[in-house]
Amino acid sequence: MDGVRVIEIKKSIFADNNEDADALRSELKRRGTYLLNLMSSPGSGKTTTLIKTINLIKDKIRISVMEADIDSDVDALKIKEATGIDSIQLHTGGMCHLDAEMTRQGLDNLPLEGVDLVILENVGNLVCPAEFDTGAVRNAMILSVPEGHDKPLKYPLMFSVCDLVIVNKIDVMPYFDFDMAKCEEYVHMRNPKARIIPICAKTGEGVEKVAGWLLEEVNNWKNK
Amino acid sequence: MDGVRVIEIKKSIFADNNEDADALRSELKRRGTYLLNLMSSPGSGKTTTLIKTINLIKDKIRISVMEADIDSDVDALKIKEATGIDSIQLHTGGMCHLDAEMTRQGLDNLPLEGVDLVILENVGNLVCPAEFDTGAVRNAMILSVPEGHDKPLKYPLMFSVCDLVIVNKIDVMPYFDFDMAKCEEYVHMRNPKARIIPICAKTGEGVEKVAGWLLEEVNNWKNK
Repeated sequence: MDGVRVIEIKKSIFADNNEDADALRSELKRRGTYLLNLMSSPGSGKTTTLIKTINLIKDKIRISVMEADIDSDVDALKIKEATGIDSIQLHTGGMCHLDAEMTRQGLDNLPLEGVDLVILENVGNLVCPAEFDTGAVRNAMILSVPEGHDKPLKYPLMFSVCDLVIVNKIDVMPYFDFDMAKCEEYVHMRNPKARIIPICAKTGEGVEKVAGWLLEEVNNWKNK
Repeated sequence: MDGVRVIEIKKSIFADNNEDADALRSELKRRGTYLLNLMSSPGSGKTTTLIKTINLIKDKIRISVMEADIDSDVDALKIKEATGIDSIQLHTGGMCHLDAEMTRQGLDNLPLEGVDLVILENVGNLVCPAEFDTGAVRNAMILSVPEGHDKPLKYPLMFSVCDLVIVNKIDVMPYFDFDMAKCEEYVHMRNPKARIIPICAKTGEGVEKVAGWLLEEVNNWKNK
């Protein structure tokens, strides 16, 4: 695992996570650093989507990545090898989500000086991560075509807290019963303002829209 | 939702879930009822797999199903319509898993008299459900091809507690980078005794092996 640091995350001691998350957001605002919390089911393509997106914008803004995982180190190494950017692995030691204090433990291990964007890849789970504000400016999630268009019905909180829903693996749409119109209807039932971007991370199709959304977000955060 | 009962599950009050799970298993043993706990990621095909499996064995043994979900009722209705068997929906009210006491709340709402097999479809989540013994005789999980063969590396506990790993959606294998040999290697790294059955729930391919495993399990439980 040469060149990838692994941080063992400890359980939080803060009683009020929402308060702590607001405090973290204020700190990040002062530093001019935008934090994105990226969530999804296991195997929806978070890491591949990140790699493709980062490679489109890494010459324009400075980016770091925190990869949360219960145990393995494969994702942080993949990101580092494929993009060359700073990437650390956060081990949650079995914990199913990250909260603001756990996110801060990760940030404390990154050089944040001059960093415009930190992306937190949360634990693969549509339930628990949605319940905890990490201190991120925005939440985004990836729903992959093989999972089915009915997921917003089954995991309501996840879809209601996300500002961006990336629909990944659209290349395999012909082999699955995935109805994009129904997907959009269900997502907007949970969050009428959610932006939906269909992509294929493998081929890169649509990823420029995700990159564009992120660049605009980061610029707005710095300038508002 | 005609004909499907929805049970709102309450948080458990028991301090020692392992003890409670053992007690539930003993009760089920006395009744001659086998309980299977089926877990997976969201969208891996649990409900379709159940429907196909149940239709192969429902004339041989008496089966009931409990569908756990955070919010929706679609799965219990689907099971009932497609198989004709007793099926209830358990609402976890946002909770990410079921423990033994929550499972008991569901069982209390089923007619168990003469029922040979109860299948619990747990919340779609590879993290938290693995941490709680539900009182089931066995744990099974479904890993679908689009999720990738590396999942046993990333969700170690889930794979170590499962006696059966069903690899679903093998029909789309040509469109994904899924290595079945690696998958088997990683599963057995977590649990050397785990049985692995590749299937396509959509077409029914391989489902007879799952049905055969279940029938044998139920018979052994009754007769040992």
